[in-house]
Amino acid sequence: MLKDYTRPEDGLDKEQRKAETKRLKEKLTAQQIRLKDIKLPVIVLVEGWAAAGKGSLINDLISELDPRFSRVFSADSALREADRYPFLYPFFNAIPEEGKLLFMDSGWMEATVKARLGGKLGRKGYARRVRSVNRFERQLRDNGYLLLKLFVNLPQKEQAQRLKALRDKEDTSWRVSDYDLRQNEDYAEFRKAYEDFMAGTGEVTPWHILDGSKKTRLEYDALRLLTELIDAGTEAGKVHGAAFEEDFPLLEMPRLSEVDLSVKLERAEYKEELKALQLRLSHLHNIIYRKKIPVVICYEGWDAAGKGGNIRRLAYPLDPRGFDVYPIASPEPHELARHYLWRFWTRLPRSGHFAIFDRTWYGRVMVERIEGFCQEADWQRAYNEINEFEEELRDWGAVVLKFWIHIDRETQLQRFTSRQNTPEKQWKITEEDWRNRDKWPQYEEAVSEMLDKTSTTYAPWHIIESNDKLYARIKVLRIVADALEEAIDRA
Amino acid sequence: MLKDYTRPEDGLDKEQRKAETKRLKEKLTAQQIRLKDIKLPVIVLVEGWAAAGKGSLINDLISELDPRFSRVFSADSALREADRYPFLYPFFNAIPEEGKLLFMDSGWMEATVKARLGGKLGRKGYARRVRSVNRFERQLRDNGYLLLKLFVNLPQKEQAQRLKALRDKEDTSWRVSDYDLRQNEDYAEFRKAYEDFMAGTGEVTPWHILDGSKKTRLEYDALRLLTELIDAGTEAGKVHGAAFEEDFPLLEMPRLSEVDLSVKLERAEYKEELKALQLRLSHLHNIIYRKKIPVVICYEGWDAAGKGGNIRRLAYPLDPRGFDVYPIASPEPHELARHYLWRFWTRLPRSGHFAIFDRTWYGRVMVERIEGFCQEADWQRAYNEINEFEEELRDWGAVVLKFWIHIDRETQLQRFTSRQNTPEKQWKITEEDWRNRDKWPQYEEAVSEMLDKTSTTYAPWHIIESNDKLYARIKVLRIVADALEEAIDRA
Repeated sequence: MLKDYTRPEDGLDKEQRKAETKRLKEKLTAQQIRLKDIKLPVIVLVEGWAAAGKGSLINDLISELDPRFSRVFSADSALREADRYPFLYPFFNAIPEEGKLLFMDSGWMEATVKARLGGKLGRKGYARRVRSVNRFERQLRDNGYLLLKLFVNLPQKEQAQRLKALRDKEDTSWRVSDYDLRQNEDYAEFRKAYEDFMAGTGEVTPWHILDGSKKTRLEYDALRLLTELIDAGTEAGKVHGAAFEEDFPLLEMPRLSEVDLSVKLERAEYKEELKALQLRLSHLHNIIYRKKIPVVICYEGWDAAGKGGNIRRLAYPLDPRGFDVYPIASPEPHELARHYLWRFWTRLPRSGHFAIFDRTWYGRVMVERIEGFCQEADWQRAYNEINEFEEELRDWGAVVLKFWIHIDRETQLQRFTSRQNTPEKQWKITEEDWRNRDKWPQYEEAVSEMLDKTSTTYAPWHIIESNDKLYARIKVLRIVADALEEAIDRA
Repeated sequence: MLKDYTRPEDGLDKEQRKAETKRLKEKLTAQQIRLKDIKLPVIVLVEGWAAAGKGSLINDLISELDPRFSRVFSADSALREADRYPFLYPFFNAIPEEGKLLFMDSGWMEATVKARLGGKLGRKGYARRVRSVNRFERQLRDNGYLLLKLFVNLPQKEQAQRLKALRDKEDTSWRVSDYDLRQNEDYAEFRKAYEDFMAGTGEVTPWHILDGSKKTRLEYDALRLLTELIDAGTEAGKVHGAAFEEDFPLLEMPRLSEVDLSVKLERAEYKEELKALQLRLSHLHNIIYRKKIPVVICYEGWDAAGKGGNIRRLAYPLDPRGFDVYPIASPEPHELARHYLWRFWTRLPRSGHFAIFDRTWYGRVMVERIEGFCQEADWQRAYNEINEFEEELRDWGAVVLKFWIHIDRETQLQRFTSRQNTPEKQWKITEEDWRNRDKWPQYEEAVSEMLDKTSTTYAPWHIIESNDKLYARIKVLRIVADALEEAIDRA
């Protein structure tokens, strides 16, 4: 069997095949727009021998497609699971929607103490953890969450008895881990570690210690405490924490109006550089994989600035099993009902992978600010919260790069008009784009403030001159390649 | 440090504490409704010593809460990852939204062949897999997906050369797995396995074989094929497959009108039975955990039939780290844009855990049918699709139980009126409930058809007489306990 689809001889010579391939790629791109229109979902399952070129085939096929409407699923990584995410990831993932109660059966305290006493966390790492936790708890509070922290205490002797009772029964013995037994053996050491942690993380939200040695008493005390605290929280209502400024290492950014947008690249030079850079990126991705470095790339920019085409050129040389492009639109109800960073936390790449965000969390200080989708305190506070978020990514070892794809207002008008006049591009332009265009001055102000307040040394903004799209693409690819090389050297 | 919140002596005797505990629990329940109103999310972080009773404390605290608005997060299972899901799970999870293209870098073929040649799949298991795949592909097609299946072929010699080239370089050698090498060594055996699989799964959606030995030719052929198939698919438009009847082992169900709703239980007897059953369930959950049996419990029923209270009694004795209650409301946009079973596939419990659905996929043949949210072909087809879905769950080893919580129309009116007249219950009754009530006859018809067509031997419906809620609770708990025991005996 295994009959080939390939027609053995179709009479095409090399040049003809190349031209045909190009034409078919354009056709696929046009079809993609049609699929979007008629809402037809398409799954292309590519199976085949190891090393038959499945990954690279998919890479070729998607190269001209709009990554917002196409994705690659890798069975390999979906089937393999691992804890290749930042410390706060599982906890941020778990935060409840508004109006809902979440009980956490241990969390960031136990995870930290376990890592510390397990020798996986040095003094510096521990201090960083404590800072992460404090920031996390403050962000929750400031964004309208009520966080209640209980610690159920138990004397050493009572613990020993309970563990023994659990171990003695077949159905419960599997519940007792070596770690549990170690807790009991090294009780004093653990007690000290718990106390340290509570002392270090009690400022934003206090700890409440309950006596676990009597079950009914424990329940009663916990109920008393919770109902009290919830009453207080309900009375206070939903908090919108005030803005404040923390000290982050900020880079000096140029005024947008001072950016020289006349920079250009000739097509011949572009082609050559593109080829070289893509080759370099393809090679670097292999090392990034192997060294398990996570990469987070953020695109923001004016409508019609050329984000989509830029992202495509960047994604092309990457292994499609190792990156995801996330188009960020308005939040859905379940996203809106949570901390605004939740939908980005849940989309972080596993280490060794790339996440490319087509629009990002900076929506908070741009569209949400300008359209009044959040309160002033919320977006004012967001600069710091975002710097904190990106510092978490850095501490986790991620390369974080942020691009502002920049054009001037005249160029935008030309591109809008051209889109309007080209049938197959009309879907790209909406009434909303025109409305946003009218708000150019407000956006310019918001963008400037954003660049000034969030261009940190560890997650810098890069302004990408994109009146000439070719220039913009090469600039982005070079920045990414350089940053990856640097990260690899450090790793 | 470790100062106790517990006031050492508060002068309460045992009886007083018990009464106070009860009062506080009621208070917490009332607070929960308030939280929902003011949209305040609450996180209760419970840390503490191993065996201090964190899990059991949380269990006590949530016992009276509405599980639709409260959840338990277990750091332990969130941090541990495992592949404890049905075979199709990762693939169903990955299906794209309407209008989007998904490329799958290998999928159900490779996973099956690997398991088969790895000795993890016997003849019977393999046949079952092939059936699952065919059903999955048919469901995709019938629900408006376009599925294109490619197999990239590669001669043995060429594969050997490529694998060697990859292994020779440091940055790519990690990409070559032992499995890849085995493919090359046992090429003929693999070839046979691929051929078998394609022969077994080519009927619903044909396989297309491409020659992978020349990269540019491969791209060209794939493009030619894809654009052709997409053109054809676009022309055909979105498919709503016709209904059809497959042979499932169905149980005879009584007419709803013949159900004797006068059955009752005295409160004293109820209390005694409840206690015994909950003890039994608590014990059984430990074994379910240990034997890694997944449990899926479905609740459907009339509005105000008592689903919520019933679920609470069932959930109470379960370990809160080992179950989730999913309240099912109208689908959100990203859910609506996919196969209607997607939002249930993604919520399956890991093995050893319980998923309790408060309303289910049967919405397709009830509310969606009656309100016209889907086409007639869609809900007509759904009976079979649901039977297939539940058979997947059974084959995976799950206990699947389905409860229709039944009351008569008069009882519903009484409960609606009482809700309307009780301030703290008013949130439970909406205009929509009254509108649905008017459609009682249409629902009765839909429910009857559902019971007749989907009560399979492996996922039976149980009609639960709930004019007396006490009777209904005991009946459900007993059915669950018996089913678990049976599953444990079989395992």
